[in-house]
This record gives sequence, C-alpha cells and structure tokens, in this order.
Amino acid sequence: MSTANDQSDAGPAPADPGAAMELLRDRVVRTPVLVDPALDELTGGQLFFKAEHLQRTGSFKFRGASFAVARLAEGVQGVATHSSGNHGAALAAAARARGLGAHVVMPENAVRTKVEAVREHGGIVHFCAPTQAAREAGLADRVAEGLVPIPPYDHDDIIAGQGTVGVELIDQVDRLDAIVAPIGGGGLLAGIARAVAESGRTIEVIGAEPAGADDAARSRAAGRRVDDHSPRTIADGLRALVGHRNLAILEARDVPILTVSEAAIRDAMVALWHRLKQVIEPSGAVAYAAVAAHPERFAGRRVAIVLSGGNLDVGALLHGLPSA
Amino acid sequence: MSTANDQSDAGPAPADPGAAMELLRDRVVRTPVLVDPALDELTGGQLFFKAEHLQRTGSFKFRGASFAVARLAEGVQGVATHSSGNHGAALAAAARARGLGAHVVMPENAVRTKVEAVREHGGIVHFCAPTQAAREAGLADRVAEGLVPIPPYDHDDIIAGQGTVGVELIDQVDRLDAIVAPIGGGGLLAGIARAVAESGRTIEVIGAEPAGADDAARSRAAGRRVDDHSPRTIADGLRALVGHRNLAILEARDVPILTVSEAAIRDAMVALWHRLKQVIEPSGAVAYAAVAAHPERFAGRRVAIVLSGGNLDVGALLHGLPSA
Repeated sequence: MSTANDQSDAGPAPADPGAAMELLRDRVVRTPVLVDPALDELTGGQLFFKAEHLQRTGSFKFRGASFAVARLAEGVQGVATHSSGNHGAALAAAARARGLGAHVVMPENAVRTKVEAVREHGGIVHFCAPTQAAREAGLADRVAEGLVPIPPYDHDDIIAGQGTVGVELIDQVDRLDAIVAPIGGGGLLAGIARAVAESGRTIEVIGAEPAGADDAARSRAAGRRVDDHSPRTIADGLRALVGHRNLAILEARDVPILTVSEAAIRDAMVALWHRLKQVIEPSGAVAYAAVAAHPERFAGRRVAIVLSGGNLDVGALLHGLPSA
Repeated sequence: MSTANDQSDAGPAPADPGAAMELLRDRVVRTPVLVDPALDELTGGQLFFKAEHLQRTGSFKFRGASFAVARLAEGVQGVATHSSGNHGAALAAAARARGLGAHVVMPENAVRTKVEAVREHGGIVHFCAPTQAAREAGLADRVAEGLVPIPPYDHDDIIAGQGTVGVELIDQVDRLDAIVAPIGGGGLLAGIARAVAESGRTIEVIGAEPAGADDAARSRAAGRRVDDHSPRTIADGLRALVGHRNLAILEARDVPILTVSEAAIRDAMVALWHRLKQVIEPSGAVAYAAVAAHPERFAGRRVAIVLSGGNLDVGALLHGLPSA
C-alpha cells in the first residue's frame, strides 16, 4: 500500500504553509527561538534554535497533525496512522480536540514513553514489526476498517502544517541566511522549503540526516527515491524512508542533505542539554550536529536550527545519575 | 573559622533585595516563569516555575555573587570562596566581569562538570575533603593569602542578591499564595523571605530540603543551628550546613522546611524533564518534590517553585541512552 494516494478523499485541495499558519495560529504554540553565545563561539555561526520540543505533545508533529485533522470532512469516524511515536501522539491529541478517535500503528521497538504518550492523548496503539512494510501494512488494515489515514509525512496537509515552523522562523528572526532541519520522512524539511519559497526570501534550506539512515541523501544523489533502507541510528524519529511528495519538493528546491555520525549526534545532544538546559531527543539534535560538523559552511552566517522534539525516556536516562 | 564575621571588611552596609535588584537589573537574566497544565493537574495547585537554571552560569548563584562582587571596595586583589560548584562558577564569572581573579575551594567529590565550569569562567580550583570543616579551612588559607572571601551563603550581600529571585517572582506572577525554594546553606530561601517581607505581601515562603541533608529542618525544630551534619543526597547543591545569618532570617520569618526523600527527588526530576523539557539538576528539583509530596498543602493555591539550577554531568547521563 502506498499512502501517497490516499489523501484525495480526506479533504479539500492542498494548502500552503501560509494558509496553514492562519488556521493553526490559535491551536499551536508559537515556540520561542533560543540563542546561546557559547554555541555561536563553538561553531562560528550566529545560531537561532527553534524550540519545537516545547510544542504541544513535545514535537513539531502537532502542527501537521492539527492541520490535517482540521481539514477533514465532516462525518469521518476516526483517523489512523503509523508512527515511531511523535506523529502518533500529535495525531491522537489533534483528533481528540475534534472529538475523534485515533489508531496508531507503532514499531514494537518504539521508545516506551512515546507509546505511553500516544495513549495519554487518547490514542489506541497497534504494534507491528520495525519495518517500513509492516508499518504500511498495519495502517492499511486500519483503513480497511473505515478509518481515514493521516500518514506521518507523505501528505500535502502534513507538509503544509509542518511548514509553519518555517513561517514562524522567517517572522521571528531577521535576515536569516539558512535554516537547517532534520529529515526522516521529510514532512518538516519539505514544509520549510515550501514556506521559504512562498516568502520569496533567499534563505538556504538544508536537511540533516543520520549517516545510519541516509535514505534521503542517497535518494537526492541518485535522483530517485531509493528503496533499500535499513536504518540504524539512535535518532528514532528519523528512521522512516523519505516520502514521495517530500522528496519531489526537495528535488524541486534543490535542498542539500548533510549526514552526521552517531557520535556527532550524541555530542550534539550533550552540547544542547549542557548549554541550553533543554531536553532534546536524539532526532532533535541532528540539525545542530550537522552545523557543528560543517563549521566552514556556516561560519559568519545567521542560521536557524530546528530542535524538532524532546520526547525520550527520561526515567531510563536518570538511572545513570550517581546516587547520594 | 567562621565566615559569618568576614564581610564587614568587604564593602558598604548591607543592602536589601530591592536595592540588589536595582543594581543587578542589567547584569542578570530576568528568568522566565514556566507553566504546565499537566503538572498542575498532578498536584492540584497552580504552579509557576521560576527558571533559574536559565540564569547565567546555570543557577541563581550568579545573582548573589554578582551583587557581592559589585559592592567590593576598589583595590581588592581577588576573591575566594568554597562551593560545591554553582557558587564557584558564579563567583568566577562575576569576578572576571570586574577584572578580578577568583579562587574556589571545592570538595573532591564535586560534580566533574561543575569543576570544569569554574575553570571555564576563569576560576582557580583548590580541592578539599568533602566536609564543612575542610571547606572552611581551605577558604581560610586563601584569605590568609590576601584574597577577599565571598562565602556562598552566610553573607548579607549574597542573601540580598539571591533575594532578587523573589523580587522578580512577585513582579512576574499575580496573586501568589506561596513560594517554595530549596535550602542548602539558605541564601536563596532567606533572600526570598526578605524580599517577600519587603514587598508587604502575604505570601507564604517555604523551604524544601532532602531528608538526607535535613540540617535546616532540624535546626528550625531545635530553635538553634545543629552542628551534626552528614549529608547523604544526590542533591549535591544542598549538602552545605545552613548558615547563621540565613537561619536567623528563617527563624524571624517563621519559614517552615519540608523534607523529601531521595526517591521523591528522582521522581520530581523525571516529571520536570519529561513535562517541561528542561534540564534541572537534582537540587533544582527538590522544591517541586516537596510540592508533589504535599498536595493537601498546595491544592488550589498559586504556588511559585524555584528551579534553582541545571548543572549536571549530561555526558555521563547520556551513556544510559539506548544505542542504534
């Protein structure tokens, strides 16, 4: 099953990030932009951190989910999706706000607290094997039961909704030279690319991806979507295969993708936690990791970095605390 | 050696938190107040988190240190203190801003990253045994060399400086019923008690202390400063013995002290990290732990909780992350 063709039944014609912003203004948090002189000094750039870990449900995913749910036709009986966690929690919260149920197909190796978050927001979890095929098959089963699929990224409304991160950034930071965002399925990055195009500004949009899940970089290099994909990264939110629509937008806007090592992701988390005092999940640290790994590319520039989420198993981490 | 009598040489007459606020307005961060509906629901109170982990050097300690250094007479050759870490880093940063050197006596079991932070701000570290007596003896050695002691809490300027946390809170949050702050040496809590008294408001001020370092609670119960003190707590910033001046202020204002277990401190850290997405050190979570442990005392009230600091060894924690 390809989720790429399902959305024509799900609502009116595609919207752009600017229109999504109008609708979402009162529903999403206009997240703050954080700055830190020590991180500027470390990288040589002037960095603006977009704090999407402070978004409702703890990630940018709430934007796209809210927009997609808001645009559903009347009378749908419920929604369904597959997700490593953040889109699932976001969809559950957005659906509940409209009085709808949400079913979420999750890989059985999903972060435990992300499973709990889906349930906390009223979502019903269905586990599947941790492969793209199993996720899509699980979603197809739910759709066969009459639920409306809201795929996590390969969907125009999702892309437009996530693009509001870019709309806000352009409004919040003067004279931006570049925006760096992580890429898993590509909803956030494609949405930001569309928001920048819509604004008419000359801001470079750059993707950041774990080397252990480099399907987007390989797809851009090959000029077509690769299908061999065995992700191996701590960045659990970036393990999905880039979507068809998303890749087409990245191709059209010529968005480059930088890859980063697992060690660089960990170092980036440490730097962000230590300096900003913010809890950022591994996926949320990948864009900063790319900037830190390429100082020559960002030195002297005004660079926005999307901290995409802050959901991880804090209780497990704190077992590492020294005792009294 | 008692540090209680040293400050008469160190500057003009004691100031109050209001006067300290005037001087510090352009030097310290007016830290934001964070709210979270889920934490309100958990505790039944309406909670306002004062984010001092976002203060310069990562804790409220920068306020007192900055005020004490600003009030030093001309011509001093340098400053010295003893500290588990946060006051040391704060004093080093404040001294450097005035072109002075800072020597910091630290217990040899201090958190590694807190030692690094002192050095990062230009401070010179001297290790000592992890006892109150060794800390004070180490400081006496530095004073004998001609440095001016800036003790971490038992000092009127330090108390006035820390009290600016209370001055800001009263200005930032309408109709506060209570302020809960952690107590180690007592500079923060005594300063807040003075700020509230100065304001003329009827706001209850409450201290929160680890049960494993309950010298302030025992001192309040005994009506005199206890001297048997063998702290055993993960809250490394709260292991010091309550100061003479600080205790006298808490006695005069009849400030109650709530104690919390180590398990409650860990649970509070998990809740704060998970909900607020903020990196809070163990000591910084103790005030929230006390509120969570006493819902009957705070239900239905507007309660400010001081998140006093966010300095801990993040790199060591992240070793607990699952790998790819």
